[in-house]
Amino acid sequence: MVYPESLENLITYLKKLPGIGEKSAERLALSIYNFNKEDASYLSKSITDVKEKITKCNICNHLTEGETCHICLDENREKSLICIVEDYKSVFLFEKIGTFKGVYHILNNLISPLDGIGVEDINIESLLTRLKDIHGDIELIIALKPSIEGETTSLYIKEITKDNKKIKVTRLSYGVPVGAEIEYLDSLTLDRALTDRQTI
Amino acid sequence: MVYPESLENLITYLKKLPGIGEKSAERLALSIYNFNKEDASYLSKSITDVKEKITKCNICNHLTEGETCHICLDENREKSLICIVEDYKSVFLFEKIGTFKGVYHILNNLISPLDGIGVEDINIESLLTRLKDIHGDIELIIALKPSIEGETTSLYIKEITKDNKKIKVTRLSYGVPVGAEIEYLDSLTLDRALTDRQTI
Repeated sequence: MVYPESLENLITYLKKLPGIGEKSAERLALSIYNFNKEDASYLSKSITDVKEKITKCNICNHLTEGETCHICLDENREKSLICIVEDYKSVFLFEKIGTFKGVYHILNNLISPLDGIGVEDINIESLLTRLKDIHGDIELIIALKPSIEGETTSLYIKEITKDNKKIKVTRLSYGVPVGAEIEYLDSLTLDRALTDRQTI
Repeated sequence: MVYPESLENLITYLKKLPGIGEKSAERLALSIYNFNKEDASYLSKSITDVKEKITKCNICNHLTEGETCHICLDENREKSLICIVEDYKSVFLFEKIGTFKGVYHILNNLISPLDGIGVEDINIESLLTRLKDIHGDIELIIALKPSIEGETTSLYIKEITKDNKKIKVTRLSYGVPVGAEIEYLDSLTLDRALTDRQTI
């Protein structure tokens, strides 16, 4: 046994984190040992807090510490502009841009018959319930990944909302990533960028 | 505020770790959120344990959970073969090789007059006390870094033990790192490797 037991335990649990191997875990564990007692106890507490305090928003299904997330509670957000995403990570990404003024709806899953994930496995019922409460025009912005599963799910959402004339369904534009070299782009992306071309 | 408060707190504390920036901290925090409750609480507990349980060995000053570390307690270790190191990290490195059969003595500091670190700031008194209790020949292997501070400290240890004929002071050999290309070596290392050359 090279390390004292508690250090060894800490290393073991740190190694469960993504991208943290033996060497990194050892380095991190020794740094934590060198934390002052206050920082170490805050770090320790913040780990249990994350597991104990965070729940899902009862409207959009995003992570929150209350019943409803701060985005859904924000009166300045346009409740009729709903960005539909696969998971909470996408919400964090959009929120970091800081320019989106609508709200979100998290599906949790994408339709994938091959993986046994059907329409009943995506969080869509609560979306339909939300839509009923909105008066006036609604825009659903679909921000799902451009895979077969993403496309299938998009088409399904388009399909189940098509009879409601108040609802417009849009999706993110596909195209050339900003800063990317055209010559290194895959042909699928280039094809999409051509289709989604914009007048300048 | 992009993240719920507890996630934000966790990210803040993870960022205090070396080599963990904003992005990594976010990734790690979300992984911890995805841990099962048991793993998260063990990780949390192991952090406080490391701060609360680990103390310094009353003989060699190495990290331990008891009064005396398992190395000093090990009856199969040669107590008269003492490897003198700067800190506990060196002990972990030596222990990983697994071939050293002696014991250690941790100095905590190296003599560095420019930084105001004098002979009274290195953990040397306890070494002299240890030496008194050993009957028979003693070898002190100095394993300090080859800097001015390391050399000064080595010379000091040599000096204060020179009157005791039972004590032999040695140091690690300097030389070419295994696997290194000779052509990329700095001239100081090459010079040392020449001086420390061995008959084959």
